[in-house]
Amino acid sequence: MRTRNNPNANEDLLKYEKYIENKEKLQQILKNNKNPINIEIGMGKGDFISRLSHENPDNIYIGIEISKTVLALAAKKINRYEEENNVKLQNLFLMSFDASDICELFEDDQIDKIYLNFSDPWPKKKHEKRRLTHEDFLKLYKKILKKDGIIEIKTDNRGLFEFSICSVNNFGFKIDEIYLDLHKVDIYNIMTEYEMKFCEKGPIYKMKLSQKQ
Amino acid sequence: MRTRNNPNANEDLLKYEKYIENKEKLQQILKNNKNPINIEIGMGKGDFISRLSHENPDNIYIGIEISKTVLALAAKKINRYEEENNVKLQNLFLMSFDASDICELFEDDQIDKIYLNFSDPWPKKKHEKRRLTHEDFLKLYKKILKKDGIIEIKTDNRGLFEFSICSVNNFGFKIDEIYLDLHKVDIYNIMTEYEMKFCEKGPIYKMKLSQKQ
Repeated sequence: MRTRNNPNANEDLLKYEKYIENKEKLQQILKNNKNPINIEIGMGKGDFISRLSHENPDNIYIGIEISKTVLALAAKKINRYEEENNVKLQNLFLMSFDASDICELFEDDQIDKIYLNFSDPWPKKKHEKRRLTHEDFLKLYKKILKKDGIIEIKTDNRGLFEFSICSVNNFGFKIDEIYLDLHKVDIYNIMTEYEMKFCEKGPIYKMKLSQKQ
Repeated sequence: MRTRNNPNANEDLLKYEKYIENKEKLQQILKNNKNPINIEIGMGKGDFISRLSHENPDNIYIGIEISKTVLALAAKKINRYEEENNVKLQNLFLMSFDASDICELFEDDQIDKIYLNFSDPWPKKKHEKRRLTHEDFLKLYKKILKKDGIIEIKTDNRGLFEFSICSVNNFGFKIDEIYLDLHKVDIYNIMTEYEMKFCEKGPIYKMKLSQKQ
């Protein structure tokens, strides 16, 4: 889901500054909070996380995105979502951050749920360490997740999903649920803009993981 | 892949007695052998295992099938395969046996490879213990497999494959390879009669497992 780089992203972000948190302020918010904390890593344009945060106002949602261009698009879209739905998503925060540094953002055992939706598949073998389900990332997720925390992964990319199954299995996560054609089963599913566009081309894959106790 | 029961299966089997082994004779053969031992549990009509045993004459192949009706069909088909290909599959043995009792048939750490091809999906939740990838069966496979032994699972049944991924994950097998649409990748694949018939209706799934060391 690559988006062409926008050289004016920083300026655009200034317009939506209220959505973007800095590290210190975010930790303060989290420490004063007793409700479940959910993060989406690589949130893209944010339609998934804005819907979720609207539906669950008591939970905290943090969308993390490395690309300033995409973050600016997400902030704009969330602003529009708020206007259209006449709502203020006060439980939703956006962060411009690299997933590799996620342990700088959160404390150990702090997160209830991590969402990875339609992550970049990095199809070349030489780039496999960049896939968000590579063992190196799973180690970070395990560190910031609560003992009973869970991970939900959704993608339309067969190669990425095959890689992810092997990776999470061999790392030692428990696969609690797996769907090899999500749209053929009757379970609750928030569709992203990307998902609506690509679900006709082939199956959407999903799995839900927890830590083995 | 249910086949209508044949009340004359025992008579038919007598015609092809040479293919069917008894437990004691089989163990004698295995003990005098230094080559890899491969078994297919629920071999159906035997087209997969007869092709494999033809291509790898130095390996031992044992097809196990609970249904006498299916076993009789397999023996007949193998007989025809030998005639058509002008070959004697002296490394192929058939056994009429229940998979639940497989530890009576083999010693611990004796088997190099187990194949499960298009096993009965037993779709009802109340029958899940009958699925050949249920934890109760995985325990038996682990017992008879050599430490570096492997399991290959192939199916067109999405529900069975989803169940199998969770089951092998929770049991602790290592998933070395997984294919969510086998016919879209360029790897060696012996197609069964069933596979040829059903691959047009949807993807064929496959995974290859080993034991975590």
